[in-house]
Amino acid sequence: MLGEMLENVRKNVPLVHNITNYVTVNDCANVLLACGGSPIMSDDIDDVRDITAICTALNINIGTLNKHTIPSMLEAGKISNSLNHPVLLDPVGAGASRLRTETAKRLIDEIDFTVIRGNISEIKALALGGGTTKGVDADVADSVTEETIDSVISFAREFSKSTGAVIVITGATDLVVSPEKAYVIKNGNPMMSKITGTGCMLSAMMSAYIGANPDNIPEACAAAVCAMGLCGEKAFDRLGEKDGNSTYRNMLIDEIYNLDAQTLRKGAKYEMR
Amino acid sequence: MLGEMLENVRKNVPLVHNITNYVTVNDCANVLLACGGSPIMSDDIDDVRDITAICTALNINIGTLNKHTIPSMLEAGKISNSLNHPVLLDPVGAGASRLRTETAKRLIDEIDFTVIRGNISEIKALALGGGTTKGVDADVADSVTEETIDSVISFAREFSKSTGAVIVITGATDLVVSPEKAYVIKNGNPMMSKITGTGCMLSAMMSAYIGANPDNIPEACAAAVCAMGLCGEKAFDRLGEKDGNSTYRNMLIDEIYNLDAQTLRKGAKYEMR
Amino acid sequence: MLGEMLENVRKNVPLVHNITNYVTVNDCANVLLACGGSPIMSDDIDDVRDITAICTALNINIGTLNKHTIPSMLEAGKISNSLNHPVLLDPVGAGASRLRTETAKRLIDEIDFTVIRGNISEIKALALGGGTTKGVDADVADSVTEETIDSVISFAREFSKSTGAVIVITGATDLVVSPEKAYVIKNGNPMMSKITGTGCMLSAMMSAYIGANPDNIPEACAAAVCAMGLCGEKAFDRLGEKDGNSTYRNMLIDEIYNLDAQTLRKGAKYEMR
Repeated sequence: MLGEMLENVRKNVPLVHNITNYVTVNDCANVLLACGGSPIMSDDIDDVRDITAICTALNINIGTLNKHTIPSMLEAGKISNSLNHPVLLDPVGAGASRLRTETAKRLIDEIDFTVIRGNISEIKALALGGGTTKGVDADVADSVTEETIDSVISFAREFSKSTGAVIVITGATDLVVSPEKAYVIKNGNPMMSKITGTGCMLSAMMSAYIGANPDNIPEACAAAVCAMGLCGEKAFDRLGEKDGNSTYRNMLIDEIYNLDAQTLRKGAKYEMR
Repeated sequence: MLGEMLENVRKNVPLVHNITNYVTVNDCANVLLACGGSPIMSDDIDDVRDITAICTALNINIGTLNKHTIPSMLEAGKISNSLNHPVLLDPVGAGASRLRTETAKRLIDEIDFTVIRGNISEIKALALGGGTTKGVDADVADSVTEETIDSVISFAREFSKSTGAVIVITGATDLVVSPEKAYVIKNGNPMMSKITGTGCMLSAMMSAYIGANPDNIPEACAAAVCAMGLCGEKAFDRLGEKDGNSTYRNMLIDEIYNLDAQTLRKGAKYEMR
Repeated sequence: MLGEMLENVRKNVPLVHNITNYVTVNDCANVLLACGGSPIMSDDIDDVRDITAICTALNINIGTLNKHTIPSMLEAGKISNSLNHPVLLDPVGAGASRLRTETAKRLIDEIDFTVIRGNISEIKALALGGGTTKGVDADVADSVTEETIDSVISFAREFSKSTGAVIVITGATDLVVSPEKAYVIKNGNPMMSKITGTGCMLSAMMSAYIGANPDNIPEACAAAVCAMGLCGEKAFDRLGEKDGNSTYRNMLIDEIYNLDAQTLRKGAKYEMR
């Protein structure tokens, strides 16, 4: 099933509209090409309507949000909704500043997201309300471990129900949670955190996966998470003694470029809960 | 002749002012350094006047245009015109949105471009008017093949006459067309389309070539197109089994860094029509 | 001592707030991760307050300044000052345009910088007043050579006294100058100038070094300069015949990733004046 998700990306070549940060945008574009999709970036309010209309999916990433791009995000999201395009939110830094937290919440209020993908602190910042009053769920763990995993899944499931989005929480263990099912994924390598933008790249790639597999969103998300993690493992195995994070980034993208369905099927490490 | 164009870049080290998109800007800067030029990026209306004045050429790329950079493009273009600096337009995405099409047309109306470089759909969107009424030239092909090449050259020649710019149309076959002559260029490798920004990189490099060869604009453009395509071929030949588009990008820039006039002369595949 | 500076970065993992240009921002982020720090980019006026407050140091780089980011730079700088965070200025292109020169001067007027790092022309543009009247110090050399080094150090020392910042002037020979001492550093390789952004990367890394070593600012700066130059040497030694500036960039970042205190101690080439 995960292999089929990948094949649909390569077959359909989904054009993904990205409103994303300027830090990792080039890597996102190259990852989209590597996985079989096609990228377009556009963030002016007068441009996003036309661009999002010709695309298959929309990827909104608030990594370097500003007062000119926030209205563009809202506009593009609403148009994508009206066209039934899958829309993904990457709430980079939610919880780290009021602007990021509030913008992400406003986006969630006004747009129907297909997927929300972040790390555990970002997702918690959005699900549990901001500031000092954390409410009843305030005891959700700050990391996903064997001990905490069931409570994190319950928490994500509630957030999935309230938003209508599949919730993807990435870290050492990754979770893909819908109201009906949960994937617990163990692919990946710690060195992925030594490259800027692995999260952003995953969100971009996941947007292509949901664009090409609109009827199987949780599976498409799980396939993208497994693919990214597996490529992180394979790239790590190829590193030489003198290589560092820059070479690792290149090898990671190269692995995505060369990944096929069979390798993904064999290498995916996940269970359902 | 093409080799001489390259040598003049390495000899004169043209400083190129780029108002360009944030997706591929780093690659454009490194390609400018690789080919022997020098990059400077500046897009604030209060900065572009001074910056363009100290440069040799101006590269305007609308890949992530917005309402703050459009006036800067117009201003920088006019000042470059008044200083007789070569100015290149890369109308990224013209035809894909009204803002892009109209901005590119406005730039062409208000600035005298030395070169306009795009793919066939972008150039058609600009030359044939937008929207549903495509006018008399509506039968221009959507790709350059043996069957369509002569009509595409005629079409580009008309656009060159009406704009005063050399028209460069890139794709599997590349064309450099002025009112007097046309280069048909066959260098390149299909994998170049699997990297983001080969078009942007070519436009940046071409700006250095026209900056260093202001009296031989069509030849300078043809040399830049051949150089980029040839480096794409040479980089492809060096790819290992596990390499992908990220390594290919690095090798492409490396090849540009190491390209010399003799290799360009030997490897250039073109004919005049 | 320099080795200890490096070890403190790896131990403390300083989070560095960057308001920087979009040309080299990805490399800056990866260099920060490579050296042991952690990057965050944020440039909206409504975001920078919260972000800078959770960081350890602030890196202000005016490479693609615009009228929206200048107020953010001022705001973030003042808040960092009030929190006693080290703040670094990289006045990219000061002297090349009035906006850059005047913005850099205004930043220096309104913010207490811990470090100002630029090339000799940028530092001269800021220290000597702009325009045609160059004032009494107009005879400061345009490059640092055996003949000019003592006068450049005196000049930098005066600028350090008047600004309260350690002055770092980089080029073939690098200087780190405080009122009390001066490091003359000879690490590096000329090929570093064939990559875009080595200066920006150094400023980002230096921000991590001063963030992790707030009580030893001149030593921290000298360590960062030696580390960058040494990695430039080591990367150059590894280049193959067909490699160019793109591979060199990757190897440079890889070397930073792998650099340890002992290698830095052994490889640092500096003297005190």
